[in-house]
Amino acid sequence: MMLDKIHEECGVFGIFSLSSKTVSKDIYYGLLALQHRGQESAGMSVSDTEGPQGNIITKKGMGLVSEVFSKEDLNRMTGNIGVGHVRYSTSGASVIENAQPFAMNYIKGSLALVHNGNITNADELKRVQMYRGQAHYSTSDSEVLAYEIVSKRVESGSIEEAVAKVGRVLKGGFACIVASPRKLVGIRDPLGIKPLAVGKRGEDHILASESAAIEAVGGKLIRDVEPGEIITITSDGIKSDKSLCGGKRAHCIFEYIYFARNDSKLDGIFVHDARFAAGMALAKTMVPEADIVAGVPDSGLVAAMGYAKASGIPFELIFHKNSYIGRSFIKPTDEERKTAVHMKLSILKSIVKDKRIVLIDDSIVRGNTMRQIIIMLKEAGAKTVHVRISSPPFLYPCYYGTDVPSTNQLIASENGADQIREKIGADSLKYLDIEDFDKMTGGLPLCTACFDNDYPV
Amino acid sequence: MMLDKIHEECGVFGIFSLSSKTVSKDIYYGLLALQHRGQESAGMSVSDTEGPQGNIITKKGMGLVSEVFSKEDLNRMTGNIGVGHVRYSTSGASVIENAQPFAMNYIKGSLALVHNGNITNADELKRVQMYRGQAHYSTSDSEVLAYEIVSKRVESGSIEEAVAKVGRVLKGGFACIVASPRKLVGIRDPLGIKPLAVGKRGEDHILASESAAIEAVGGKLIRDVEPGEIITITSDGIKSDKSLCGGKRAHCIFEYIYFARNDSKLDGIFVHDARFAAGMALAKTMVPEADIVAGVPDSGLVAAMGYAKASGIPFELIFHKNSYIGRSFIKPTDEERKTAVHMKLSILKSIVKDKRIVLIDDSIVRGNTMRQIIIMLKEAGAKTVHVRISSPPFLYPCYYGTDVPSTNQLIASENGADQIREKIGADSLKYLDIEDFDKMTGGLPLCTACFDNDYPV
Amino acid sequence: MMLDKIHEECGVFGIFSLSSKTVSKDIYYGLLALQHRGQESAGMSVSDTEGPQGNIITKKGMGLVSEVFSKEDLNRMTGNIGVGHVRYSTSGASVIENAQPFAMNYIKGSLALVHNGNITNADELKRVQMYRGQAHYSTSDSEVLAYEIVSKRVESGSIEEAVAKVGRVLKGGFACIVASPRKLVGIRDPLGIKPLAVGKRGEDHILASESAAIEAVGGKLIRDVEPGEIITITSDGIKSDKSLCGGKRAHCIFEYIYFARNDSKLDGIFVHDARFAAGMALAKTMVPEADIVAGVPDSGLVAAMGYAKASGIPFELIFHKNSYIGRSFIKPTDEERKTAVHMKLSILKSIVKDKRIVLIDDSIVRGNTMRQIIIMLKEAGAKTVHVRISSPPFLYPCYYGTDVPSTNQLIASENGADQIREKIGADSLKYLDIEDFDKMTGGLPLCTACFDNDYPV
Amino acid sequence: MMLDKIHEECGVFGIFSLSSKTVSKDIYYGLLALQHRGQESAGMSVSDTEGPQGNIITKKGMGLVSEVFSKEDLNRMTGNIGVGHVRYSTSGASVIENAQPFAMNYIKGSLALVHNGNITNADELKRVQMYRGQAHYSTSDSEVLAYEIVSKRVESGSIEEAVAKVGRVLKGGFACIVASPRKLVGIRDPLGIKPLAVGKRGEDHILASESAAIEAVGGKLIRDVEPGEIITITSDGIKSDKSLCGGKRAHCIFEYIYFARNDSKLDGIFVHDARFAAGMALAKTMVPEADIVAGVPDSGLVAAMGYAKASGIPFELIFHKNSYIGRSFIKPTDEERKTAVHMKLSILKSIVKDKRIVLIDDSIVRGNTMRQIIIMLKEAGAKTVHVRISSPPFLYPCYYGTDVPSTNQLIASENGADQIREKIGADSLKYLDIEDFDKMTGGLPLCTACFDNDYPV
Repeated sequence: MMLDKIHEECGVFGIFSLSSKTVSKDIYYGLLALQHRGQESAGMSVSDTEGPQGNIITKKGMGLVSEVFSKEDLNRMTGNIGVGHVRYSTSGASVIENAQPFAMNYIKGSLALVHNGNITNADELKRVQMYRGQAHYSTSDSEVLAYEIVSKRVESGSIEEAVAKVGRVLKGGFACIVASPRKLVGIRDPLGIKPLAVGKRGEDHILASESAAIEAVGGKLIRDVEPGEIITITSDGIKSDKSLCGGKRAHCIFEYIYFARNDSKLDGIFVHDARFAAGMALAKTMVPEADIVAGVPDSGLVAAMGYAKASGIPFELIFHKNSYIGRSFIKPTDEERKTAVHMKLSILKSIVKDKRIVLIDDSIVRGNTMRQIIIMLKEAGAKTVHVRISSPPFLYPCYYGTDVPSTNQLIASENGADQIREKIGADSLKYLDIEDFDKMTGGLPLCTACFDNDYPV
Repeated sequence: MMLDKIHEECGVFGIFSLSSKTVSKDIYYGLLALQHRGQESAGMSVSDTEGPQGNIITKKGMGLVSEVFSKEDLNRMTGNIGVGHVRYSTSGASVIENAQPFAMNYIKGSLALVHNGNITNADELKRVQMYRGQAHYSTSDSEVLAYEIVSKRVESGSIEEAVAKVGRVLKGGFACIVASPRKLVGIRDPLGIKPLAVGKRGEDHILASESAAIEAVGGKLIRDVEPGEIITITSDGIKSDKSLCGGKRAHCIFEYIYFARNDSKLDGIFVHDARFAAGMALAKTMVPEADIVAGVPDSGLVAAMGYAKASGIPFELIFHKNSYIGRSFIKPTDEERKTAVHMKLSILKSIVKDKRIVLIDDSIVRGNTMRQIIIMLKEAGAKTVHVRISSPPFLYPCYYGTDVPSTNQLIASENGADQIREKIGADSLKYLDIEDFDKMTGGLPLCTACFDNDYPV
Repeated sequence: MMLDKIHEECGVFGIFSLSSKTVSKDIYYGLLALQHRGQESAGMSVSDTEGPQGNIITKKGMGLVSEVFSKEDLNRMTGNIGVGHVRYSTSGASVIENAQPFAMNYIKGSLALVHNGNITNADELKRVQMYRGQAHYSTSDSEVLAYEIVSKRVESGSIEEAVAKVGRVLKGGFACIVASPRKLVGIRDPLGIKPLAVGKRGEDHILASESAAIEAVGGKLIRDVEPGEIITITSDGIKSDKSLCGGKRAHCIFEYIYFARNDSKLDGIFVHDARFAAGMALAKTMVPEADIVAGVPDSGLVAAMGYAKASGIPFELIFHKNSYIGRSFIKPTDEERKTAVHMKLSILKSIVKDKRIVLIDDSIVRGNTMRQIIIMLKEAGAKTVHVRISSPPFLYPCYYGTDVPSTNQLIASENGADQIREKIGADSLKYLDIEDFDKMTGGLPLCTACFDNDYPV
Repeated sequence: MMLDKIHEECGVFGIFSLSSKTVSKDIYYGLLALQHRGQESAGMSVSDTEGPQGNIITKKGMGLVSEVFSKEDLNRMTGNIGVGHVRYSTSGASVIENAQPFAMNYIKGSLALVHNGNITNADELKRVQMYRGQAHYSTSDSEVLAYEIVSKRVESGSIEEAVAKVGRVLKGGFACIVASPRKLVGIRDPLGIKPLAVGKRGEDHILASESAAIEAVGGKLIRDVEPGEIITITSDGIKSDKSLCGGKRAHCIFEYIYFARNDSKLDGIFVHDARFAAGMALAKTMVPEADIVAGVPDSGLVAAMGYAKASGIPFELIFHKNSYIGRSFIKPTDEERKTAVHMKLSILKSIVKDKRIVLIDDSIVRGNTMRQIIIMLKEAGAKTVHVRISSPPFLYPCYYGTDVPSTNQLIASENGADQIREKIGADSLKYLDIEDFDKMTGGLPLCTACFDNDYPV
């Protein structure tokens, strides 16, 4: 999409069913529910625990879930256990070789792995793997993770034991699901940076990046996988290994700010509520004289409602969003950039005219889009546009799996708040204070490194 | 889409540029802005007024605008005059033969025609045409219209004169744009049932079903084409023939209820404002004890805000809408129908729990979707769900180009309001009164036949 | 294909079955058997004589038969009567609008028409049609033919009567098949320029451009449609109208030289035998000292065998032809032109080395390919290459439906035989004498206008 | 294709250019020239020796060369070194995971490998690899080969040294080309079962399965790679390591019987000449009373010419072969099987009628196709059909990379010659004697295991 956002890199989904051989359909719907987490490639692997050992079927491709999988694929891929993945990637590595799952045959059978996050010591691990002769087909750290499990599996009694050994050496943020022919194993990084939830549907178990995906297939959220926990699901039910749990926690604040769906519940906090609280917190000081509060769709809407409630200024919908502008849309050339924003968002003029507006968005990355929006609002007759951002200025890179533009493209890295205000043409600009995160997530331990340079590892 | 709606059949767009040979791009963006009016086929015809006479290039195909046209198509289709079309159709006639524009060579040159609406005396005209030997390739009444113009053109001094003669014999609702190699001619039915607006971008002129499409290409709305007016655009500028104007008017109320974009202005009324007013009108009586007002996205949101304002009950966003569930999505089977609604819409549980809700939607057609939504809300803990519909019960067929399910599928045709309430599981149900339409559109003369059986012709 | 040939423009196929509702499959196989006659578009129309009147289903597209039709298309297009078409076109008009069949609804029902040939008075007829208001969607004279039938049908008691009336006014060469919902009607031009044969399979009747297509679907050739004859096939059997028969005949000699399949029998003459006889005739004089006779595959092979027999010089296969070089092959750029011929044809060096070769081809159009072939043969060690062409020099345009390069591209139009010999690098060059055509076709009356400027009309 | 043949599994091509950065085009044309060796998948990898180390670009896909690669692919894949592959596979493993090249990053850089043949000790090697942690993405023994090179490379000074070490442990038949970022290395199995040739084009070097592919890109055959030889091509030229050479040789006889192109020269023997000699050998005894000799196109034609020469019975072309019946052709159902053969091959009736025919083909696998052909010939009036097969009865499986139907499908495995004659409906049947292979290949040491159960390893 053309709108100016930080990108999550992945969504993962896994299911173990006792009764259904059509988990491919569940994975399809689960991935659709996670599509916002990655739109560049999609894939799934399915296996039948009662079929011949090691018979994992995989389909992956570039594009959206609805583009990659055909009805024939879903019908053909029978099985009761499987994993799926959606991926966003930086342009350079947007190649089919990096699409997930990674499905491999190894000495003890076969496995299919999906992974969200970033292994910060992947290069180090990869070097050792390469000396072992483990050549890499991709440039993905998920392949490093897969090989690490394969190597540990040789000396382990079970796949979950191998995963546990790997968990001990990994650094970074990761939520990973492995389907072996008879088991589904999930692991979440000990800091809890990346989200992973476990759900139930009758006797079936589900692992997914967000609770919304569990519910999309008719399941119910049981709980989050604990930071460091290894969940193993077999036909005998669910098993937990908490030997890596108990350390420091640092949940990614950006899940609450932007990545996750409004209807998901992550580590006990409803995402909607966190965003609403951020909006309220923004209204604690410096509330301008204004007639209406509005949010940039869709991510700024909830915070705008919170702001409206706290400030007493009425909330209004002032944008029409064209939902037909998707990935395959032929983008206007650079000179036509204004058209690009205009195609996606347009103004409800009758509301905006002669109004003083408080405009809420969740973040400003490069600033171009916000500048265009303000121009459009002013052209439509807005008297003033006061911008409020429901997160602090984005300043530092993320090492845990979030795609951030290089520093010189971040408007906040080279401009103070007032310069930014001027560049985007706002009448005033205010960011959320870092301290206000506690209001959003009720004191949950957070990773806020992208705002304060305080990396948890 | 799976949601239970009445469908518009078409959107039309035409442009005459004095300076640009790349109107194919403008038509592309214009059609994207009108995509909500029709998603089954798309097409455009382009001509160069300085090129060889009669050299109209046409591309049409089944699917969305972004699926039908490639970058190569847009680059290849050079010209400064052209028309475009998006079409929705009932399943039976969803064939490429019916896709528009209809581009023909005839005795005086060539033309490309796009049309939104329904010619009620098409069969009669077609019979005469067929006796003349004018065979039909399609089952579309737009082809009838094209042939009628061709026949009248033989005995007329200009294309606009032929269009005027045709306008005199046509019955029904229509908004039609014809590109001849040197002119762009638009005509709107004398009742003004179908919308058509005219805009300007520098020295270029634009005709489109909605003002939003004019703005999408950087133009400004000048005014609506008057009911019965014929607009002719040449390199000398714009010309108007009002000889058919002046009779009774009957603008389609469903454009304001559901079809048009919130940011369009039709016949002087902002669509958003009409919907907001409908919501306010709904709150004039029988306002239940409730904690929140919510709208079914996206079409019920504005009316919900109006209802909230009038009733004093706070507005809330209670749904997450998955924008990746499009046309090509593999639909769940019938047994999985609940999943289908659930995939598209999910509930923000933390808001809904223990709440008494007033839920606004613009219409109920079959009732299935509303029933599923209420089930989902109750499962999420809603105490009561009071449904308010910002239009009256839909009871009668439309003969002017709107696709309506057969009467026995319309929940209102065989059930009284209380039976409907029971079927959908609502705690109370109220529709907008027909008299309240005046509050929406400020006394504009309307066609409300689908509600009151009072057909304007 | 890159090889330097004159192109036929079309192949037609029609079938009326009493027992099968799956004639779409027969048409598919029939068109595959006629694919050599046209590779740019393909199409078919199918109707069920027991289904609702006028319910003709059509599918057409650009490309080969195997690219245009899917299994789903064939399964979906049920019916017991239908027509099909393959088309070659000059680049300018290679557009979907010109693809056949032309399927129309008209005053007396519906029809689908396929046509091979060229109506020389089409412009004249079209002008009258256009005054009548019959606009044209295509630039094809087949649409002229369709409209002419439609217009005559209004004043006729049956479709075959209308076809007969049209037959009286048409000039040029044509083989045309019309499927109406209950009948299959074929007409062949009175001169018999274009071929059309009728066959039988049990109680089913078939019309096709060549007998090979009848046999491809398990039928047997009954006889050729007589020049000027109108064949009508209904559920009551076959009916013949010979009122247009009996005049001068002029069968296209190029069918025997190159267009038709070796295994077809046209107007009583096996194509293979005609080509063999041409080869024998070439050997009557000026037989050079040579070690082997060879033909350029595939069209020169049979004549080469005839030459070998008549001359006593042994026949050899000296080329390998790569059958994977098709339409979709990415052609080398101009500088790589030699590669292009080389990719398609390569030399069996062990045979060619040190040999004196008589090389037979059916025609030389531009001369480039023959020049490349001779270079390749010389590089492979051939001592001499004597070229013999089994047709006279191609000098004049064809007005009856064959695509001929413009005169200035025809090597024979500006060069005498000796200059051509020099340009292509042959050691000697001889063409077939026009008088020898009689040896090919046993005195059949022929159209030889492209060689002698003697046009039959 | 429907014709009843044994299938080769692969063709390989590699090129190192000093001057051109567009080897992707050469690989494309080289693979087109090798397309007969495999039609199920195609792929290429390209690297630029002057580009960043390890930057190999790969594209592979299911289907024909012309279907897998677009013009954009070829333009995008710049480089001066690369390898390509075409693959045939048994249905079970016809999956994208098994498509080649295998392109990997490993400890010393990166490599892309293509391979034709079968490693008979692959399972053994794979087991060791798996204990090392080298997981497999495919079920292909080519991946085993790639990993083996990777592992040996760790302890070797160069890629060619690693290949040499691997060559020492491999068993079976193989022709393999490896592109590393700076070198092209080819290895041929010490028995010489699989063919591999080296060619030159100016200063560029080429390795390919057949000389025809070298010539297709404008190169000239230098010589065959010797059995066991390792060829290394760098910017300094060509280097040979013959340390594995010198043992027993066993060239695959089926290359001469059927696999290779007529215009290729393999291990010093022109394929055409071998086939011609086989035809001659067949005529040494039991020549029936006959009027004509004919071959089943295309593979039986050359042997038929040899038979004609030796027997004095005249050679005739009696079949028309439809070259438009390719992979994507919708096959008739089983009941329509006769149509299937008929679509591909039809009879020139005027030649066949009343003739006594000697019919030559290169092999009979299942016998169905030959039976259909004889039925068609008899229906066309052939008096007798004497079948001569230019190879012995096919009886035993191949372990070196040729796809053979299971034994119970081989007509010769359960039937004596006379029973086969009866089943196919021939008037007489004779196979080539194994001793006659010497006449074909001039005493070249051969692998004839599929005929005599005498496996070279």
